[in-house]
Order: sequence, then structure tokens, then C-alpha cells
Amino acid sequence: MQHNNNQNVSFANEPYRDPDFTINFKAPFNAEPRQDVLVQQFITPTEKFYVRNHAPVPDINGESYALKVDGLVGNPLILSLSDIKNKFEKVTINASIQCAGNRRTMMSEYKKVRGVGWGIASLSTASWSGCRLKDILEYAKVFTKTEGALHAVFWGLDFGCPEDNGKPYGSSITMEKAMDLDGDVLLAYEMNGEPLPRDHGYPLRVIAPGIIGARSVKWLDKVTVSSQESESFFQRRDYKIFHNGVDWNNVEKYWDKTPSLQELSIQSAICIPAPNSTLYLPFTITGYATSGGGRKVERVDISLDGGETWDYAELMGEDKGVCNKYWSWVLFKYTITQLPQLQNKDHQKIRLVCRAWDSASNTQPKDVKDIWNLRGVMNNCWHF
Amino acid sequence: MQHNNNQNVSFANEPYRDPDFTINFKAPFNAEPRQDVLVQQFITPTEKFYVRNHAPVPDINGESYALKVDGLVGNPLILSLSDIKNKFEKVTINASIQCAGNRRTMMSEYKKVRGVGWGIASLSTASWSGCRLKDILEYAKVFTKTEGALHAVFWGLDFGCPEDNGKPYGSSITMEKAMDLDGDVLLAYEMNGEPLPRDHGYPLRVIAPGIIGARSVKWLDKVTVSSQESESFFQRRDYKIFHNGVDWNNVEKYWDKTPSLQELSIQSAICIPAPNSTLYLPFTITGYATSGGGRKVERVDISLDGGETWDYAELMGEDKGVCNKYWSWVLFKYTITQLPQLQNKDHQKIRLVCRAWDSASNTQPKDVKDIWNLRGVMNNCWHF
Ligand SMILES: [Mo]
Ligand SMILES: [Mo]
Repeated sequence: MQHNNNQNVSFANEPYRDPDFTINFKAPFNAEPRQDVLVQQFITPTEKFYVRNHAPVPDINGESYALKVDGLVGNPLILSLSDIKNKFEKVTINASIQCAGNRRTMMSEYKKVRGVGWGIASLSTASWSGCRLKDILEYAKVFTKTEGALHAVFWGLDFGCPEDNGKPYGSSITMEKAMDLDGDVLLAYEMNGEPLPRDHGYPLRVIAPGIIGARSVKWLDKVTVSSQESESFFQRRDYKIFHNGVDWNNVEKYWDKTPSLQELSIQSAICIPAPNSTLYLPFTITGYATSGGGRKVERVDISLDGGETWDYAELMGEDKGVCNKYWSWVLFKYTITQLPQLQNKDHQKIRLVCRAWDSASNTQPKDVKDIWNLRGVMNNCWHF
Repeated sequence: MQHNNNQNVSFANEPYRDPDFTINFKAPFNAEPRQDVLVQQFITPTEKFYVRNHAPVPDINGESYALKVDGLVGNPLILSLSDIKNKFEKVTINASIQCAGNRRTMMSEYKKVRGVGWGIASLSTASWSGCRLKDILEYAKVFTKTEGALHAVFWGLDFGCPEDNGKPYGSSITMEKAMDLDGDVLLAYEMNGEPLPRDHGYPLRVIAPGIIGARSVKWLDKVTVSSQESESFFQRRDYKIFHNGVDWNNVEKYWDKTPSLQELSIQSAICIPAPNSTLYLPFTITGYATSGGGRKVERVDISLDGGETWDYAELMGEDKGVCNKYWSWVLFKYTITQLPQLQNKDHQKIRLVCRAWDSASNTQPKDVKDIWNLRGVMNNCWHF
């Protein structure tokens, strides 16, 4: 199962996918479910879970698979899949994973950005089972922070990422997140009670809840404990957010001094109805809201008049989290039974908006204009 | 030192205060330093630290003072000040404390709210020393969460709060925050290396960093571990944030179903120059930025044109925090050497704005209109 940078990568051996996906990029495969289908249930069915790939999907034999753990550890490891399943406690968490590029298409409509165009459905929620990264790192006798152990660097087996000269996808998280017992970072081998499907990282992937999906590396090849962040393109030259004066002519000055994205911000979107729908009363609006860092979604506001007046949506709170461990989205609904302004008219145009607030009183920015950024990441403006 | 609800409370024995304070309310005393003075140093001099009192300042004898610890604990405690100093490890942290009402005056200018009017200086930063609340609760053999220990309820000795029928000030935090080793909740007896001054809670106060100042109860009388939040007015009928449709006619429906504020959101303000100043180039803008929950301030953006274009301020990063333990503000500066648009005019009006971003990619809302709320709390809109 050794791969190297020079191998031919091809898309000839991609897995079967749900024909109902909206395909945003074909090869590598990037697709999101229909937004109305997404909010039908708290746990997204595996086949509907959005797919964000950076290269062809590796075809890995779980029997011969080995995870390497090296770097600033006293006891470097090579672990088989059965070692991982048998030597370490099995932990199951519900967690949403959201791409930092979620809602990028809307940002691009305001002003063009580069990157895969995503609607509002590049996030999904699953039950993940695996071992704690913390347990594996402790077994490897990981060094302390003062000894320089600051980042857990992940490499995938998905060779052939065009942005990074054919290297596999790579990324890192801080050791504080990796080693936090309440951080719930897993090396997951099951998704919704079944072995991971190929598109979601078979046989082993990182699940780093509360932070951008880009850090939850799939088809995990190696964990290296390091004093430095991942040197991958995807850590150093992507997934960063700048003010609107940074463009492709001057961005080189900014990459190194801009932190790589980790925790997600507060986010919400209306999934039903689709924009420009004709509604017949009573009508129920349905959507999702989520925040990063385990923060709880405290409320979702709905406006029928573009944000002049608001009311509270009902939260369908299936995320039974505890303080700072709310890893999953909440779904919300709001039923319109009458429109106060509706008088003698048969039709009335309403301007639906949603915005969420989290347990740190953070809320979404109103206008995409104010958060526009070159890479089109972290678009969490009010959803009209 | 026993007080009771019926005692006469008077303001005849208030401590000496800096004559340079801006007094927002005289009795109880509520005052903030001059905003230009505030940002002269990272640690606010004790006499310049903003004061937010809810009643007359108690005059407590440290020799006879006793802290009570009761409720859901196996070993209720009565501890003298020297017990607290001698039995428990002394811990020192730098932390900013910010009133949830900071910048309320600006919110009230948009649309009237009730509450003490504060400018932009109802926050300050100090070095606090004391013992960990966690250590005291463990010594008291605190029950577990499954045994119902969900809130640490604090009562002060400042009898005479008019909002709460003469009771002392009270508030609570979650046990997750209280018991989190990384949460750094202290029972502090020193401020900037000296015993607490009377205005800041002598002889003992709570310092709960990263959350609204209202939870850092001064003149601490008692800690009760409870399955319920504090029943104080200040937990149940204040310090909550609603949408703009909640007013004094309908608010009763909303209090109980609205969470009490805990973690602070992302905030920043320009302290120098004052609004409507005449500036001569080169000119340096100075201000502060802070976030809640220990999140790091990653960047501060400055605009000279009301938010159309932005540049980065320089962060004077004296907060040497670690992941999710950035308890102190950062000060920032930005020097204007020339105005690109200045051509043949002698004078030019610029529209300065700042906004900050934290490590969870949260940023401040643009317009106060969009976050206006009945109690005028958590105003963190862009600062013009
Ligand atoms: Mo992503
Ligand atoms: Mo406050």
C-alpha cells in the first residue's frame, strides 16, 4: 500500500455515489446533497453526506493498512487497523463537519473568488466511532508543549492533489485541541455504525469536531507531532481569511502572517423553502444552525421582512451536548400562519432571513460584502 | 460582619475614587476611566480600573471575614481569609473584565434602553491573584454533575441592591467553567499585587475570565453548589439578550426561556482619537480588542472610509496566552501617514472604523440596529 508522489493518479476507480448529489466539481469529486434533503433528519444518511475530495479516492486494503505515528514522541508507532480497534477505547460522538467553503457560491456572486463553488449544504452530521487521538498520542509517549510538541500534523493517502504538486492532502491541528479530553478528536473507523465508506476516508480518518472540515483528514497515513504547523499547501496557502484589500497580486505578503483557520464561527441557513419559492400558508421554514468550538447554538432568529423585525425559530435540539461540547448542528423550524401585512392583496413578497446566535453571544454578519475574502471562506452572513 | 436584608444601607462610607473618572451613576457608584487613559498601558492601574457597583460598598474586616461554601458538597466549609491564602495554591493570571453593558450609551442613542450608560471604557485589565475556585470546591468534596452539581452560585456582601429588594448582588456560572482547570476561575484576594481595594471586592472576589463581568461577584459571601442557576435578579431578569421585537410590554414571556449571558463575544473600540477630532498627519490610532471564552484576537481591521476598505492594525500582543486561555485584551495601533484620497484639499473628513476577529473567525456586527436589545447588553458593533 505504499504510494509515492510519482505514481499515476487517476479517477478510474472512484466509488459509487448518490445520483441525487449536486456535483460542484467532478474530479476530484466535490458534491453536496439537496438542501431540502439535508434537513430531513438530524443524522445525515451516509450516502447523502457531502463529499469534499482533493484528489482521486485511494483504494486501501484495511488488512494491510498501517497508521504511522512519529515526530516528537518517545515511542513511534506503526499500528494496524485491528491494533487501533483493539488497543484503544472505542468512543462514539455525533458531530457535524462543515467545509470552510460552505456558502462560497454566494460570496462569489457578490465578487468572484477562487475555489470550489458550494451552496449551503457543504456540511452534514454523522455519528463517528473510533479511538481518541489523545489516547494514541499518549501511547506514543508524546512530548510536552515545553518540549516543542505544538501541532499534530496529518497526512492522507490521497496522492495527487493538484494544488500541492501531487502530494496527498495534509493539515494540522494544535496539540491543545488534540490533547484536550473535552476536545473529542477521534481517529474514526466508523460512520453511522458502519466502516467508513471510501469517500469518507476508509479505513481511518481524523474527526476534529468544532473546527473546519479541512482539518479532519481522510485516509489517514501518518500523524507527526511537530513544533510547526503542517507544511501542506492546505495549511499554509489556503483556508485563511483576509480583509477585502488582499487580492491575487498582493496575497504573497499575507499568507505567512495570517493564521490558518481552525474553529468554525456561528452559521445558519434556510434550507426549505428554496429562494424565490411561492408559498401557501401555513408554511414551515426549515434550516440548520451550527457553531464552532463546541459552543451551543442558543437561538435562531427569523425575519420575514429582510431583517427589520425578528421572531424566534423553534430549535429541534437533538444535540445533547454539555458546555463547550456541542459538536452537532441544530435543525430549526418556523411556521408562518399569517402575514400581518397581508391585507387586500392576493400575493405578497416576503424576504426571509435567518441568523443564529451562539453561547458566546456571537452572531452572523449581515452583509457578505463586509466579510468577502479572496479564498471565499467562512461565509456566514445572514442567509436570505 | 453579618448583614441582613433589613439593615440600613447608605452611601456614607464609600471609598476614595480617582477624580478623573467619568461617573455614569453616582450611587451605586458606576464609573469608567477616560478612554485615552485606558489604553496607555496593558495592565490598567488599579485606580483607573472601571467600577461597576450595584449597592453601597461594604466595609469588611478581613480578620473576621469568612467565606461559606455549601450546597451540593460533601464537606461544607467556612474559611477565613488566611485559610484561603494558606491552604490553597496561589495562582496569578492577567485578565480583562468587561461589563456586558460596555458601549450601552451608543445602543441607547440608536433607540433608548434601560441601564447604566457606559461609553467604551467599561472594561479594564489587571493581574489577579488568588486560589482556584476548583481547588476550594474539590476540598469541599463537591458532587458530580450526575449528582446534580451544575452551577456555582455566588452571593456578595453588598446588601442593598435596589433591583433585588435590597438583597446583595448574586450570580452564577456553570460548573463546567468552575471546574475546568483551563477555565482559570479564581477567588482573588489581590489585584495588581496588592490586596483588593474596597471598590473591587475586598477581601475576596470571583474572577471568572472570558465571561461577562457580571459573573465575577465582588465581596464574596458564599458559594453554593446547586442544580439551578442563581435565583438573583441579576441572573434571571437582567444580562440577557433578545431580538428587537421584545419590549417592556412583552418581556415577561421571554426572561425564563432566554439563556443568561456567560461568554463574551468579539469586541473592539478606537480609544484615540475621540470622535470628531481634528487630526494632523502622521497620526496614530490606538484602541483595544478582546474576545470571550479565552479565544485569541487574531486581527483588528481599520478602515478610514467607513468600512469600504480595510487595513490591518498592529497588535501589541502582550497577552501571552495559550489556546483558549487568552483572557486579556490586546491593544492595537495604526499609524496614518497619508491619506490616498487627499489631493488639493486642505481638510478631509475620514470615517474611522475598527472591527476585530477572533480565533473562531467571529467578527463584530456592522450596525447597532441589528443587535439592539431591550437591556442594551453586548453591544459589539463596529466602532466608528
Ligand atoms: Mo473544506
Ligand atoms: Mo455588568
